[in-house]
Amino acid sequence: MNKLKNKTEIHIGMVLFPHFTQLDLTAPFEVFARISQAQIYFLSPDLQPVHTDKGFAMLPNCTFENCPDLDILFVGGGWGTGKIMEDARYIDFLKAQGQNASYVTSVCTGALVLAAAGLLDGYRATTHWLSLDLLRLFDVEVEEKRVVIDRNRMTGGGVTAGIDFGLVLVAEIFGEALAKEIQLMIEYNPQPPFQSGSPTNASPELLAKIKMETKEIQEKRKVQITRILNR
Amino acid sequence: MNKLKNKTEIHIGMVLFPHFTQLDLTAPFEVFARISQAQIYFLSPDLQPVHTDKGFAMLPNCTFENCPDLDILFVGGGWGTGKIMEDARYIDFLKAQGQNASYVTSVCTGALVLAAAGLLDGYRATTHWLSLDLLRLFDVEVEEKRVVIDRNRMTGGGVTAGIDFGLVLVAEIFGEALAKEIQLMIEYNPQPPFQSGSPTNASPELLAKIKMETKEIQEKRKVQITRILNR
Repeated sequence: MNKLKNKTEIHIGMVLFPHFTQLDLTAPFEVFARISQAQIYFLSPDLQPVHTDKGFAMLPNCTFENCPDLDILFVGGGWGTGKIMEDARYIDFLKAQGQNASYVTSVCTGALVLAAAGLLDGYRATTHWLSLDLLRLFDVEVEEKRVVIDRNRMTGGGVTAGIDFGLVLVAEIFGEALAKEIQLMIEYNPQPPFQSGSPTNASPELLAKIKMETKEIQEKRKVQITRILNR
Repeated sequence: MNKLKNKTEIHIGMVLFPHFTQLDLTAPFEVFARISQAQIYFLSPDLQPVHTDKGFAMLPNCTFENCPDLDILFVGGGWGTGKIMEDARYIDFLKAQGQNASYVTSVCTGALVLAAAGLLDGYRATTHWLSLDLLRLFDVEVEEKRVVIDRNRMTGGGVTAGIDFGLVLVAEIFGEALAKEIQLMIEYNPQPPFQSGSPTNASPELLAKIKMETKEIQEKRKVQITRILNR
């Protein structure tokens, strides 16, 4: 049985940063918040509102400095990951908490941030399909899966993978019964109107369009990661 | 072709209220925010932070009073719906905007609020599986489907149905190409770890447990709706 299961309070820390993709965080949050023992911290260097990549702001409820020891450390993704990968405030916080957390986790390009903090070295992990090659630049065994568990690292694919990720994490810690109950309460019985949610089923034309449109930013990110790795 | 498609600015209004279920709103928001013409308003009677049913607060960016004419009116669900179904500030706002909006929409128990405002009278609609019987109390033809479109009313099932709902709405207005592109960017290729997201596939024991636990609040809601209908 998982040792977290019997704790009366489980500290889950979700890191906020400018221009993060809100659903990367709000989807697993909806799952985590239904764990009765969960104390969820929205973390940031200070308590100012943090603007997501689509404008709307979220309010941190705890600073990095005041954060208690976390049982579960979580980082979501978004274009803003580029900046925090080289921001010592974030990287130092992740390194410190990542050492002792029972689970070190991410959804989407949050995995790049964990990797930049050295927290995925030698682990199997996944990320948003567009960034799999970027994650491969690190010492990470990249898997093209929706959710990857390797020892106490748990990483999810892009954005909406956060729902599957959240349910898998709940099942891992608390058992299937709670995960199934949460799944039923959030009516997670998905019926995507199209088959276009993955590079394996999207049209080649659409894939080519998105790759072209994101080429510049992905190239820039590649240069950045190479710079980080060469330090 | 849908008349909204060629507007240079599309006003989408998402109603915030105390104790709403954040994912009901943040899931379709993630889809809507990827429509380049979208101007999204988080609406409330005032600009104070609005606390969701799991604690964290969202900031409105527009008051009901200052809200422009909406093209798409959206209401999510949550336990807080009980209160706003009888709050004239909300009901009057919904009635006024619902008259002229191109689309009147909801996810989860947001449908109960639309119904309380008379906006679903004579329409087919859906809601969270636990509240289908409550929606049936109104003059609504209830369908047990993930997303229901009837003329300009579009309603989704519980919580995570907001993703399917958002993609269906984008396809309806802008065509399948944009919906498929958004689906690929949010990697919506769901892989629920369990078959437990609907009363049709959850275990009878789990269903019985949840029905028992929610019986009191659902009974209270039934009394409330009967009172609203008898006014």
